[in-house]
Amino acid sequence: MSDIGPSVPLITLLTDFGLRDVYAGIMKGVIAGISSAVKVIDITHEIPPQDIRAASFCLMAAYPYFPQGTIHVVVVDPGVGTTRRAVAVELEEAVLVGPDNGVFTGILEHKRVKAAVELTCTEFWLSKNPGYTFHGRDIFAPVAAHLASGISLSMMGPPIDPAELIRFEIPSWKETDDGFFGVIQYIDYFGNLVTNIPGCCVEGQIWSVEVADREIPGGKTYGNVACGFPSAFVGSHGFVEIGVNGGSAKTMFSMNVEDHVQVIIKERKS
Amino acid sequence: MSDIGPSVPLITLLTDFGLRDVYAGIMKGVIAGISSAVKVIDITHEIPPQDIRAASFCLMAAYPYFPQGTIHVVVVDPGVGTTRRAVAVELEEAVLVGPDNGVFTGILEHKRVKAAVELTCTEFWLSKNPGYTFHGRDIFAPVAAHLASGISLSMMGPPIDPAELIRFEIPSWKETDDGFFGVIQYIDYFGNLVTNIPGCCVEGQIWSVEVADREIPGGKTYGNVACGFPSAFVGSHGFVEIGVNGGSAKTMFSMNVEDHVQVIIKERKS
Amino acid sequence: MSDIGPSVPLITLLTDFGLRDVYAGIMKGVIAGISSAVKVIDITHEIPPQDIRAASFCLMAAYPYFPQGTIHVVVVDPGVGTTRRAVAVELEEAVLVGPDNGVFTGILEHKRVKAAVELTCTEFWLSKNPGYTFHGRDIFAPVAAHLASGISLSMMGPPIDPAELIRFEIPSWKETDDGFFGVIQYIDYFGNLVTNIPGCCVEGQIWSVEVADREIPGGKTYGNVACGFPSAFVGSHGFVEIGVNGGSAKTMFSMNVEDHVQVIIKERKS
Repeated sequence: MSDIGPSVPLITLLTDFGLRDVYAGIMKGVIAGISSAVKVIDITHEIPPQDIRAASFCLMAAYPYFPQGTIHVVVVDPGVGTTRRAVAVELEEAVLVGPDNGVFTGILEHKRVKAAVELTCTEFWLSKNPGYTFHGRDIFAPVAAHLASGISLSMMGPPIDPAELIRFEIPSWKETDDGFFGVIQYIDYFGNLVTNIPGCCVEGQIWSVEVADREIPGGKTYGNVACGFPSAFVGSHGFVEIGVNGGSAKTMFSMNVEDHVQVIIKERKS
Repeated sequence: MSDIGPSVPLITLLTDFGLRDVYAGIMKGVIAGISSAVKVIDITHEIPPQDIRAASFCLMAAYPYFPQGTIHVVVVDPGVGTTRRAVAVELEEAVLVGPDNGVFTGILEHKRVKAAVELTCTEFWLSKNPGYTFHGRDIFAPVAAHLASGISLSMMGPPIDPAELIRFEIPSWKETDDGFFGVIQYIDYFGNLVTNIPGCCVEGQIWSVEVADREIPGGKTYGNVACGFPSAFVGSHGFVEIGVNGGSAKTMFSMNVEDHVQVIIKERKS
Repeated sequence: MSDIGPSVPLITLLTDFGLRDVYAGIMKGVIAGISSAVKVIDITHEIPPQDIRAASFCLMAAYPYFPQGTIHVVVVDPGVGTTRRAVAVELEEAVLVGPDNGVFTGILEHKRVKAAVELTCTEFWLSKNPGYTFHGRDIFAPVAAHLASGISLSMMGPPIDPAELIRFEIPSWKETDDGFFGVIQYIDYFGNLVTNIPGCCVEGQIWSVEVADREIPGGKTYGNVACGFPSAFVGSHGFVEIGVNGGSAKTMFSMNVEDHVQVIIKERKS
């Protein structure tokens, strides 16, 4: 197992704690107490409570934009205090720290695991007797800070088989006679509907999206249609997305996560 | 008065400014302008507007997890611009900076004050003529940054008697014939009801909580009951807490801060 | 063009991304990947979606409190992916980076521009082929990080005439027979109504505000009236402001941005 780590060690936090309470601040205090040099970046603390799928999507979306050696801590943890395992997973680019409950599914679908351990070595925890409700503070933050300080992953606990890491089933998209069928996999703050259909399916084509009995022409961005009108485009996450210029596609179409979407290829180029 | 301060000076912010406006960002700009080395951590900016009791609880909850020498700035300040004093308070572990209006009550109940001063020396303020509405920017942030830069607390103004620092009355809990009586002292973002009954009262016992005519069995975490069901447990703040797996106890029981709670000890173990 | 930059380079972010999604976190990851030394401060990510006027006000309000050489990145960008220009603007104190759509109007009204460029040099972008929807990640964050690393503004693209930078019309205030007439230009998180009438118009005078058929006496702060009562004062942004002690002036008076306000000078002092 190689040492990894950028010149300034970087830890990200992705949780469902919200920002009203002190939980995220406490994790940063714990980290600062172990390593004053480490830099902490919030990916988000506003994952809908206990929504493992949203956490998995958001980590997958943010992951490519962080430097080599970043340590990503995810705490969306409905099973905290039960028998679910606490784990750390080393990839080529980064280390993941969090509960073994599916939050890493999106990443694990696309990345090779170099090593994975179960977090059992209490000497790297906040105390040897952690509480049953806040492993973000008691286990995940201190383990991440020790990793950022240069302690090896293999010190944190016994190795586990990467194939045994918990994953949920990711909804699939498929090619159809006239295009592609998929589902909404995420809805963002603006109400943009993010499908699971990769952008490469439509790039360079003339295309549209059928959703809620309406056909929306495919374009390059939501800014190209009049205010209040919908458009489909390849969004910043790399998937076909439906937005409304100055409005919310979620509201306009009453769509939710897992609802169906059909992309129509009107004219196939090259 | 001893110099205190970690290797990288650390300032925390705890306010009711919310995150929509620029107030928290401005305080960080002021701090960065005085000391570019200092690290700033947000405890929270989402204290309910002017809720001194919530601020006191949140500071008390976060305090133990920050490193030696941290400077905690609290700006929940309904009396800004009136005659309420601005103060800094040195404890063994940390320095508190903010209005003398009760926001430090929770800490002052449990910690010995080494020194306290009224903030009157304008040379450590943003300007000699601060406004009447935003002492977080004009007084508290610059004073904290100067303290983080190594200026002594005694330079900030005349000493004051710690016994005269304003405190509100903290609701008390008490032992009853069959257990403990207390109140809800805080409700978190998840809707968990945090009582004022210390966890040590129930640890190792068989116990339950009576709330809103319902008896809730005491367990170790909300993850041990079926989804949608309530449970009582010792929460991460160290108090008896009532939560709902995948839901909100606040909503389920229509409970608010200061409402009564009864813990029943079913069987006393040694 | 002179090099500017503080000892620790400082980048601020001001966007309408909200904090639920990963967009702000991604921008910080991109910046950390280019310059690990740079410090990032959030001014706010809660500008109402696509509200260029609110972004302009908030940047203007925060600007004076950041140290020399700060790089301010603003991403409120309804026209992303259309023909609107991406720009960087050098002032005496700071550099502005963002879309050329009016977000810098408030600053440009008051500050002299030293130099402005259109961001066209793709070597300082995240990739040579940015997406059409998230220039905060693809252009503005990487350009700001390269500027923070010491790359000169003139390397980022061809110079443009500062007079051609897009500005919206700022509502004007005027002197009347008995005082001053203006409008609400911003409403903060507390519901305080910020007018566009400068505080110097009323300072030292005996004055009141007429709003929604009600006269509100001018004072020094909202803490000087009884709880639930309104007061008018010179707010922290330097303008006449209307607030309610312990409440929301927006709700009490059903006022919105651009609504009219009349200041009455009751007695002119020297």
